[in-house]
This record gives sequence, C-alpha cells and structure tokens, in this order.
Amino acid sequence: MKITIKDIAKATDLSPATISLVLNNRPSRIAETTKERVLQTAREMGYRPNYAAVSLRTNRSYTLGLIIPDIRNDYYATYAKGMEDYCAEHGWNMIFCSTSNNPSRERQSIEALCTKNIDGISLVTTPPEEERNNYIANRELILSMKIPLVQMDLTAYKKPINAVVSDHEKGGYMAVRHLIALGHRKIAFITGPSALEGSQSRLVGCKKAFDDNQLPWNEELVYRGNYSYTSGLDGIDYLSDKDFTAVFAFNDLMACGVYKGLEKYGLTVPGDISVIGYDDHFVSGILNTPLTTIRQPIYEMGTESARILIHATEHEDSEPIISKFDLKLIVRSSTRKL
Amino acid sequence: MKITIKDIAKATDLSPATISLVLNNRPSRIAETTKERVLQTAREMGYRPNYAAVSLRTNRSYTLGLIIPDIRNDYYATYAKGMEDYCAEHGWNMIFCSTSNNPSRERQSIEALCTKNIDGISLVTTPPEEERNNYIANRELILSMKIPLVQMDLTAYKKPINAVVSDHEKGGYMAVRHLIALGHRKIAFITGPSALEGSQSRLVGCKKAFDDNQLPWNEELVYRGNYSYTSGLDGIDYLSDKDFTAVFAFNDLMACGVYKGLEKYGLTVPGDISVIGYDDHFVSGILNTPLTTIRQPIYEMGTESARILIHATEHEDSEPIISKFDLKLIVRSSTRKL
Repeated sequence: MKITIKDIAKATDLSPATISLVLNNRPSRIAETTKERVLQTAREMGYRPNYAAVSLRTNRSYTLGLIIPDIRNDYYATYAKGMEDYCAEHGWNMIFCSTSNNPSRERQSIEALCTKNIDGISLVTTPPEEERNNYIANRELILSMKIPLVQMDLTAYKKPINAVVSDHEKGGYMAVRHLIALGHRKIAFITGPSALEGSQSRLVGCKKAFDDNQLPWNEELVYRGNYSYTSGLDGIDYLSDKDFTAVFAFNDLMACGVYKGLEKYGLTVPGDISVIGYDDHFVSGILNTPLTTIRQPIYEMGTESARILIHATEHEDSEPIISKFDLKLIVRSSTRKL
Repeated sequence: MKITIKDIAKATDLSPATISLVLNNRPSRIAETTKERVLQTAREMGYRPNYAAVSLRTNRSYTLGLIIPDIRNDYYATYAKGMEDYCAEHGWNMIFCSTSNNPSRERQSIEALCTKNIDGISLVTTPPEEERNNYIANRELILSMKIPLVQMDLTAYKKPINAVVSDHEKGGYMAVRHLIALGHRKIAFITGPSALEGSQSRLVGCKKAFDDNQLPWNEELVYRGNYSYTSGLDGIDYLSDKDFTAVFAFNDLMACGVYKGLEKYGLTVPGDISVIGYDDHFVSGILNTPLTTIRQPIYEMGTESARILIHATEHEDSEPIISKFDLKLIVRSSTRKL
C-alpha cells in the first residue's frame, strides 16, 4: 500500500493540509520542529511523492512513447534506439510498448501511454489485412486526443500525419539494378506478405527495373514469403526445380533462410547463386558469406521521429511533416558477376 | 495545448464544476440537454480525460516497468517479451526503458517510471566496475519509494530483494564437461568483462570442471573479451599461436566472431576446432554451422519477473523471492569428438 499524506497526518496527529504544505515545501507558518517531525515520519514510513499529482500541475511529462510490433526484431529495436538517443540528448525520457503486432494490444498500449500523460507517440505497425479497421481506429483515437503522432511508413493510413518513410519502390529497383549490372537475367524473388505495402512497393520497383532494361518478367520465379527465416527456406524448396542465377529476398532474415536452403541443394553462394537481402540486419555482416543488402537508415528514422514529436509539442498548429529517407546498396560477398 | 475542463467551461459558459460532474458521469441534477451540450463540446474540442487524475484517485496503474541496458540486444529483448506476454495475459500493461548500460540514464528511467505511477519495476543492469556505487544507489532509490522491485541476476547488490537468477557457474561447468566428454583437453576461453559476476561465475565453473577431471588449467588459453562480436575475432588473433582444439566463448555473439576469426586462419568448425557458445541467441541456430551453446531460459525469467512483481503488489509484506533457473546444453554441429 502506498503511503499517502493522510497516513502521515494520522501518524503525526496533524492535518493533511499541514502535511501537504511541509512535503511540498510551500511557504507557511509551521514551526521548524513540526516540519522536521513531518519529514522524519514521512521518511520512516517510506512516503513517495505522488508524481502523478506533480504532472497534473505542469501538464507536461517530457516523455515520448513508442509502440512497436515486436521488441525482438532488431529492425524495430534499432529505430527505438535512435529515438532513445535523441531523447536522452535533449533531456527527454522515452518509454516503449510492444504489441506482438496485435492491434488490440496496440490499443491497450495507446491507452496505457495516455494514462501516463505522454507528450507524443511514435507508432510502428504492420497490420494483417483483416485488422486494417482496428489499425485505423487506433490512429483516430490518438488524433482525437490531440496527442502528437508520428508514424513509421504510411501503411494503410492516408490522412495527413507526421511520418518517417523510406522509398521501398526505389529499394526494390536498386537491388534488381545491381543484379542486372552483374549480368543476371534469371532472378528469383522471395517477397513479404502480399498485404503489406512495403513488400508491394519493393515488387513494383523490381518490375520497373526489368522494364527499364527490356527484360521479360517471369511470375513463376516469385515466391510469397512472410519475412521469417523459415519462409526463406520454403522459398528455395519452391524454386528448386526452376532456372535462376540470383535471388532477391525482401528481408535479410529470409536471405539467411535462402543460404540454408541453397546449402541443402548443394548450391554455393555466390558461386552458384547470387543472393541479395534487404534491411542490413546486424547478422548480415557476420554471416560466413557476408550478405549484399539494401540498407534502410532505420536508426536515423528513429532520431527523426523523436525530433518531429518534440517539435510538434512546441508548435501546436504545425503542418504534418513527412520525412523521406534514402536507401543504400551495401555490396558484400554474396553477389558476383555472371 | 491540452484541452482542460476550464476550456470547456469557457466555451459552454458553464462552471468548471458542472463540466467535471458531466464528464466524470457523477450523479447530479444537470439537465440532459446541458449534459449533451457539454459532451458534444468536449468531443469537438478534442478533450482528453486526464488519466493522471484518475490514477491519483485509484493509486494503481496496473502497469509494470522494465529497465534494460540495451534494446538492441536479443537477450534482453527476449526477457522483455516474456514480461510483456505475462502482463498481457493478466490484463496488465507494461512499459520499457533502455539505458545504454549507463547508470545515470538508469536513474532518469527510474524517475520517469515513478512519474508514471508505475506499480513495479524489473531492473536489468550490467554496470561497469567504476559505476558500482551509482548502480547501488539506484536500487536504494526504488526500495526507498516502496515500489516492488525484481532484479535479473544479483550483480553487486547483496541486499535481500526479489530476483530471477541463473546459475552461471553451473553453465560454465556444463560447457566444459561437454568438451571434455568429447575428448578435448586443450580448451581456450574467451570470457566477458572480468568485472561482471556472470562472467566470473562461468569461469569458476570452467575451472571446477577441469579440477573434477584432474586436468591442468592453462591461464595462457584465457582471453578476456567484452561480449562483443569483435572481441571474439580479437580472441582468435590472441590465440592464433597457441595450441588448442576447442574454444568456449562466454556468449554467442563472441562465438560468431570466433567462427570468422578461425576462417581467417584457414581453420574449420568443427573439423579443426570445436566451438561452444552461451545464451542460445537466435542467430546460433541459423549459422552455416549451427552453434552448440548453453541456453538460458531468458523468456521464462521474464515471465517469472512479471509474476513476482504482480504478486508483490498484492502481498505487501511478502518476503523477497529468488527464483533460480536451470541452464541447458543445446548440442548442434559446432562441437565434435576428437
């Protein structure tokens, strides 16, 4: 049970008002000896100042909240670290919630953060298709409470809000352009879930690169994965009887599965098959054959989202800011000239 | 600017008391039409109930806090996920802070969580030697506020507090016993920072396994790493002119560096050198040569820490609980019989 001012009043036989004046160090005519007795008793009873009450007075908590789908995913964790470092540098605090990519847990997290009188929220979600409406309702809830919001990517939410986005169409284009430049023509693709716009955009970019180079697109070489390690393995099982010289996995985790799958069929990387990933997961650089990949500046997107939120708390009527980030091709050892 | 009851009072030309009665749905004689007008105005102005005030009344937030040294480390993220899942199942919320293993950021996080009227805190820290006093002061601060606390491992803090711990001495013993059973006698070690008790305990266990098998201990084969990938690489550089058939890296990330370092010297795993790690990082299973390792039940330690905290909020004067967890040898392909 938390110790309240009333408890201390009872213990000292003084009025709650007196206790409050002493504990909040307000000007009063209370004798020094009484003050000392109150402070001593409060200490002994383990009195903890009610910070919620302090927060009520100032109406500012200097704390940003971040809601991510999965704390175990290095991609989101790096974004979080970017926000955290920006907050720490600017004297703000930051708290996270994780939702297991479940919109009703996202709702709970939003309510929990509002209970905590947060000054701004950064939202990262990749909602399954059937949860689209709950996903939208959660954003409406935050906006209706006039809490500054910044979103990573603009998945499914078309209203003008603050966002940090990367151009996945360009990312897909860059990956394929790299493979084509190395002489590859028969390129296989392991995509993310087809409902997700990030995956859709990468695919649009891939097709555009084929078009720009007057190469024929072969739908047979496209396997729909789900961004998991296992779906990289499954993709190679699907592709095993097909003719290809390179694989573009839409994230690095699936590329790890591709490595393993190719090994199973006695194929080497990049000797037999070139492999390119996406994200630049920290694992990609330490694999036996370091992975060529498309790097998203995810840490920088995290710092930018904190900057946007803090700016929004200081400029109430500012227009929504959409910050776009460039992707970068990181060439390592997993792709080679045909 | 957040909309307050006063703002709505001004807009409706009613008294703040009336607005408060309506918004808090308290019994009153206010006319239905007036009530509707208040609610309508509040909606239009984007009024957000002041949850901090609600929290003041109930003095319970049903929220646990977790402070970890590094959100990007899969080990801590898995612990967090365990807590999160337990909280979600039991209708509690959970918020995280990350400190970059810096005790003054830990202090800030503790203060931030207290401002948020949190019901319990789970603390994970691996303090550098010179920060030992700040580390201890932070724990004293939480205890002085009578907020239930649970700690992962008991690094440097000897008072009786709730804790979830794994027996690292036994873990070190198990790793070496496995290598000895495979016929290895010349075993090299890449440890964590010598100031950390987790690393010290593993080393004690290693020496004990040597003693129990009447094998001579060779201090020359011990390299002091710092749990980073790079220090695994450095360890192999140090060991390159020494005679050994197996390496025990005190975490999996260093074991990844060991793989890379051995490759540099033209040595294969497990053909030339057997390698065993510690933690069972998710990477360990997907490496080209899956890594034999000692698994810590870190997810289960996370769920247990949530259970202990929720129990502590319901049973104020309960004795500190120390939950011990068993480690498990996971044999994969990186160790072989000599």
